[in-house]
Amino acid sequence: MDLSPEYARALDADDELARFRDEFVVADPELIYMDGNSLGRLPKRTVARLREVVEQEWGQRLIRSWGEGWFTAPQRIGGKIAQLIGARPEEVLVSDSTSVNFYKLVHAALRANPNRRVIVTDDLNFPSDLYLLQGIAQALNCELRIVHSKDGLTVSPEELAQAVDANTALLTLSHVEFKSGQLHDMRAVTELAHRAGAWMLWDLSHSAGAVPMALNDCNVELAVGCTYKYLNGGPGAPAFLYVRADLQEKLRSPIWGWFGQSNQFEMEPKYRPAPSLTRFLAGTPTMLSLAAVEPGVELLLEAGMKRLRAKSVRQTEYLIALWEALLQPLGVTLNSPRDPAQRGSHVSLGHPEGLRIDRALIEEMHVIPDFRFPDNIRFGLAPIYTTYVEIYEAMMRMRHVIEERLYEKYPTERPAVT
Amino acid sequence: MDLSPEYARALDADDELARFRDEFVVADPELIYMDGNSLGRLPKRTVARLREVVEQEWGQRLIRSWGEGWFTAPQRIGGKIAQLIGARPEEVLVSDSTSVNFYKLVHAALRANPNRRVIVTDDLNFPSDLYLLQGIAQALNCELRIVHSKDGLTVSPEELAQAVDANTALLTLSHVEFKSGQLHDMRAVTELAHRAGAWMLWDLSHSAGAVPMALNDCNVELAVGCTYKYLNGGPGAPAFLYVRADLQEKLRSPIWGWFGQSNQFEMEPKYRPAPSLTRFLAGTPTMLSLAAVEPGVELLLEAGMKRLRAKSVRQTEYLIALWEALLQPLGVTLNSPRDPAQRGSHVSLGHPEGLRIDRALIEEMHVIPDFRFPDNIRFGLAPIYTTYVEIYEAMMRMRHVIEERLYEKYPTERPAVT
Repeated sequence: MDLSPEYARALDADDELARFRDEFVVADPELIYMDGNSLGRLPKRTVARLREVVEQEWGQRLIRSWGEGWFTAPQRIGGKIAQLIGARPEEVLVSDSTSVNFYKLVHAALRANPNRRVIVTDDLNFPSDLYLLQGIAQALNCELRIVHSKDGLTVSPEELAQAVDANTALLTLSHVEFKSGQLHDMRAVTELAHRAGAWMLWDLSHSAGAVPMALNDCNVELAVGCTYKYLNGGPGAPAFLYVRADLQEKLRSPIWGWFGQSNQFEMEPKYRPAPSLTRFLAGTPTMLSLAAVEPGVELLLEAGMKRLRAKSVRQTEYLIALWEALLQPLGVTLNSPRDPAQRGSHVSLGHPEGLRIDRALIEEMHVIPDFRFPDNIRFGLAPIYTTYVEIYEAMMRMRHVIEERLYEKYPTERPAVT
Repeated sequence: MDLSPEYARALDADDELARFRDEFVVADPELIYMDGNSLGRLPKRTVARLREVVEQEWGQRLIRSWGEGWFTAPQRIGGKIAQLIGARPEEVLVSDSTSVNFYKLVHAALRANPNRRVIVTDDLNFPSDLYLLQGIAQALNCELRIVHSKDGLTVSPEELAQAVDANTALLTLSHVEFKSGQLHDMRAVTELAHRAGAWMLWDLSHSAGAVPMALNDCNVELAVGCTYKYLNGGPGAPAFLYVRADLQEKLRSPIWGWFGQSNQFEMEPKYRPAPSLTRFLAGTPTMLSLAAVEPGVELLLEAGMKRLRAKSVRQTEYLIALWEALLQPLGVTLNSPRDPAQRGSHVSLGHPEGLRIDRALIEEMHVIPDFRFPDNIRFGLAPIYTTYVEIYEAMMRMRHVIEERLYEKYPTERPAVT
């Protein structure tokens, strides 16, 4: 392993995707931003697009803009996301938050499978999904069966298969687990659900835009995902949902809002869900936040998921090699899978003083990772803009923080809001 | 009635709120915009605020902005809206769409009143509310009892009282009805619900920012409302919800998302709803759209609801006087209440050719009202920026369209999307 900065620079010089970094606002070139898995950077095109939406479309065209592109934005942008995740354009819609979309789809799946009363997930799943499932299980009088990870980092297909049975309506997992970055084998896991006659619902929040996938090819029934991480859609940008084409007319959202109504502006008194996926819309789309999603998705399509994944694997491998040489000797653990085929685009490094090390990196080292209890420092590598030099510097600076015990001046308690 | 343009100009010259029009982008001074009850104009301050949120907060501060004002925005902006509607700051939250918020609160109310199985509303209520109620009634096995308007324009407290009984969990109505503009007497209607032991849920979408109200003083349990109409929050801006302080800890959102969790970033596996109204949040707030809500609300607070209402009444009275003189003789009906105490801030005028007249006004006359089936042309007067000259011109031009039969060249069918 070459530990020189020259090697990192050589990797950047050799990067076929390097030019895409110029598509993003990099206001502070000294800042090493490793949190693109929480909030992606701002695309320059989005700045221009938002000015257009605000100043021309809202300011000048006013209500007329609804007929000039706003009404069809959830479907149009969904159709572009579909290309990133191996789905057909008419199978993806952008609307509401990931949590609200997850709620809609879990409800719909349970209503469609009334003779099966069990939902299966794992304890590595994102807390919001776990909370939503608890609420739905209580409301619909279902059982929520949680597969517990043995090592706290991963769950195997075999462990999942043991939990899924003839009474299982739905298996739902995060495609990439938020803490460890474990990447599930979409095909194998979807198949094991199908073998038991259960449906599969993937949460793609930590994989969309980072990992290529083939929802159609794996015959996945349902999926949701976030657009503000690797899709660079902006803070709290509306989320997407996917429903396999043949199921759309069989399923109903529990939230019968007017944007899901057939011929919405007839304003008939009786609810008749739209024939297409549009039935999963609820209220009026948040147009400013929604418009901001489109340029980021277009950039990923230009870069290409295959190339992005290849770079992501090279980058996480590079980070892990640096960890092995520089940080493992200092007691830092690798809390992500070692095999790149089982890993998304972030790497978690563990240390008993993780919370304070994270704090010192942010406050003194110009490095922004993020932290997840109990001891995970997550380094999110967004291959569309992260450089090898940044990875090199992040690891060097983390070594410095630990060697010099720079973290000791920070409190062991998390601040109220971070 | 003085029908001269000089009189309209004199009314504008005498308007103590006239200066507020300069706070809004008026890109085309020739355009008479009468659809502020569908999409309010763009405040100039919002242009500046959005540039700041996008270019500084997202672009430069990135993830750190969550701790620098984003996390508390739903509560902070809710607290400002509370001042417009007679509630306490901790009783109002901005989140999701009106439809999703309505869904949450109706669900919560029915769960809290398990021995009462009837929801009462009227057939003038906004379609999305009616659809949502149909879905909830089916899911929770409740009865949805709809009071039918006799004249298609209004429903009286007496008619409502007859429908509300000891089995009624909830009475829910639009405070200002979307089609006719009927303004319900909040105190009288809330009291009639309470006399039967039912709760009251007001949809304030067409009244917030147009009509002063006193939710606390009327002891209202629940309310929702839209921010993109009279609050000028932008297209599809996130909506608000209100829960009376003493009920907050007794109620649960059906959507158990992570933003409603106690100590959200502890990321505990078990859902424990936040002790405050925060429990009604679900997913990550759409920050760009949310940030755009704040400047519009601040402008209304500066203008003052009492003064805004006084001007609104003068303006709708003026419009109706012009209608009486110019349009009634041409067969145009007044589809809004004649008594200003029973009227919100929009006036509906009816004509058998309403759809085509609306179209001609937009295409040829530089006037933008909107249209609601079967025959209502709605003129939304937003007292914070609408002028008397605009009202005068709108009525004169509508007379011209009808007298010259300019509408005849337009199709009798509504275009697919408007």
